[in-house]
Amino acid sequence: MMLRVGVNGYGTIGKRVADALAAQPDMTVSGVAKTTPNFEATAAHRRGYAVHAIDDAAAFAAADVPVAGDLDDLVAASDVVIDCTPAGIGAQNREIYEAHDTPALYQGGEDADVADASFNARANYDEIANGDAEHVRVVSCNTTGLSRVLTPLDEVYGVEKTRATLVRRGGDPSQSDRGPINDILPDPVTVPSHHGPDVNTVLPDLAVDTMGVTVPATLMHLHSVNVTLESDADADAVRETLADESRVFVVPEHARVAGPGHLKELAKDAGRPRGDLWENCVWGASIAVEGRDLYFFQAIHQESDVVPENVDAVRAIAGDADAAESVVRTNRALGVGRFDPTDGDATAADGRGMAASADD
Amino acid sequence: MMLRVGVNGYGTIGKRVADALAAQPDMTVSGVAKTTPNFEATAAHRRGYAVHAIDDAAAFAAADVPVAGDLDDLVAASDVVIDCTPAGIGAQNREIYEAHDTPALYQGGEDADVADASFNARANYDEIANGDAEHVRVVSCNTTGLSRVLTPLDEVYGVEKTRATLVRRGGDPSQSDRGPINDILPDPVTVPSHHGPDVNTVLPDLAVDTMGVTVPATLMHLHSVNVTLESDADADAVRETLADESRVFVVPEHARVAGPGHLKELAKDAGRPRGDLWENCVWGASIAVEGRDLYFFQAIHQESDVVPENVDAVRAIAGDADAAESVVRTNRALGVGRFDPTDGDATAADGRGMAASADD
Repeated sequence: MMLRVGVNGYGTIGKRVADALAAQPDMTVSGVAKTTPNFEATAAHRRGYAVHAIDDAAAFAAADVPVAGDLDDLVAASDVVIDCTPAGIGAQNREIYEAHDTPALYQGGEDADVADASFNARANYDEIANGDAEHVRVVSCNTTGLSRVLTPLDEVYGVEKTRATLVRRGGDPSQSDRGPINDILPDPVTVPSHHGPDVNTVLPDLAVDTMGVTVPATLMHLHSVNVTLESDADADAVRETLADESRVFVVPEHARVAGPGHLKELAKDAGRPRGDLWENCVWGASIAVEGRDLYFFQAIHQESDVVPENVDAVRAIAGDADAAESVVRTNRALGVGRFDPTDGDATAADGRGMAASADD
Repeated sequence: MMLRVGVNGYGTIGKRVADALAAQPDMTVSGVAKTTPNFEATAAHRRGYAVHAIDDAAAFAAADVPVAGDLDDLVAASDVVIDCTPAGIGAQNREIYEAHDTPALYQGGEDADVADASFNARANYDEIANGDAEHVRVVSCNTTGLSRVLTPLDEVYGVEKTRATLVRRGGDPSQSDRGPINDILPDPVTVPSHHGPDVNTVLPDLAVDTMGVTVPATLMHLHSVNVTLESDADADAVRETLADESRVFVVPEHARVAGPGHLKELAKDAGRPRGDLWENCVWGASIAVEGRDLYFFQAIHQESDVVPENVDAVRAIAGDADAAESVVRTNRALGVGRFDPTDGDATAADGRGMAASADD
């Protein structure tokens, strides 16, 4: 069965999700919807997506972007809709999807109660697949990053308590209206931050306290993570546990990666679309155990780590595959976990699995 | 007794230490020593300090900076020398001070073994005052910041374990050759960082694991601190414990201080010399207790928090006052803990206790 998936909102997340869907063997992009006919709308058209105008179709026509319909048309043409609109808009859109009786995914910028359940492929895929939630929220980039490492650590060693400081990028590279400049902000100043409770939407039994800090950088978030384990472990064993995860990249010492700047360069050198890093990037050299206290640093690419999760969530609510099948299918189609373009399925790894440009 | 104190090195720390010494009723600046006759050397002369040329006296004369002597002359004219030279140079200078049999202080950039003991006024003043160490290292800005809060927390509640992430500024505002730009670096990538062991040079029995991160900012460091206490506490009680500390500024919610940018502005508005913040700045709103886990954020002004500690360390090695006397004397002379210029000793608070400019 070929799932027809519509993407409402074609910004930082929406465009990546659309390309990731188009790369899947079992999915097709029924179209994308957009408010403004900016350069991204033009790119969507050139990539071959049916562009739907949310408001002002005439403005799209004036910008030489042919309009395939409106949001209602897109929802009607879709088996599943992925809402990638800005935070808070998804909640307003739910009634549109409900009116069509169309299952929908929402992003982590929405409050948890936008949906019937929250989702992370590693934490609770099967629960969503076996449940009857049709409106599902894919948790945010930071929560995704924490869930991906805490789930295996809890399975293997047990997690007594997690304490993490999330050093957050101030904005994405394209968000020219964001800050701070030359400042280091407690954000939020109250402790714990909302991220710990958000982890509990997919891992309800985990004790996790988080603190947020925002800094003048745009490339990735950096997490400083402490996990008090329930059983003894050594750093090498933890490293193997994390390296076994298909969406965790344990950065080897020999790579001499100092930070997100190097990681993004590495991704671009590997031919990754938009230089994306879908995986948690855990510094191998940082993994340390003092008593039962585990420590490590990980970098999280806020623009892309939720992309494979959105793909998996489509299959989960469509009841189309179990967790292991879906994750393998998603990873293979995108090239998740693969940084060498000559290694494995070149079709995915070199980006040719992506929607072809109309200019090609 | 008027203590004659020489300052070797007149950069970021040295110039602040010289001014702080000059403001003390029981100390006089015997002179400052400098390598290069740059704008800071000119300022030292104008402030009335006897400038000693470490190397090239002719270059100072050419820059219209009268030379009072060389480093040997300065040491000979001093009861105590404070070495404020760049990290690593202090260790090379020790033999010069020893040759004169002159006690010396070193900064936290030096390895701990540069000196016979390390010092923080709140952690171990009396131990240094009662011991016979004549070469003493004042611990670094970050270590000072941690020691000032961990000592009272350990006294009142007991500290089982401390875990702190130090989000470090990339360089001082005047360090135009530093980075990073737009990056968030694990620094060091290995965990724990050296800061925890450095705390143990003044608080040997404390379990403290630290992680370092460096970001593109220059104003202050930001610490995200977790302390697992040995006894129950609530946030209000901890807040009072910290507010009782004369070198901890618990930032009130009504001040609406978002970060270091606001803190520095607050200090400048208060007429602080160079906009300095000698105190740890702990956000009151951030103080939270979950079980026995205490959390809070504090900002640390890397250019100045060690300045009052250097003054106290002079009295400790001179055997001139006990801890309580020295801290009160230092605080009063500088205006530590006072942000309102109309509140208390105006002579200190408005900076008039500082060395007068020769231009006045």
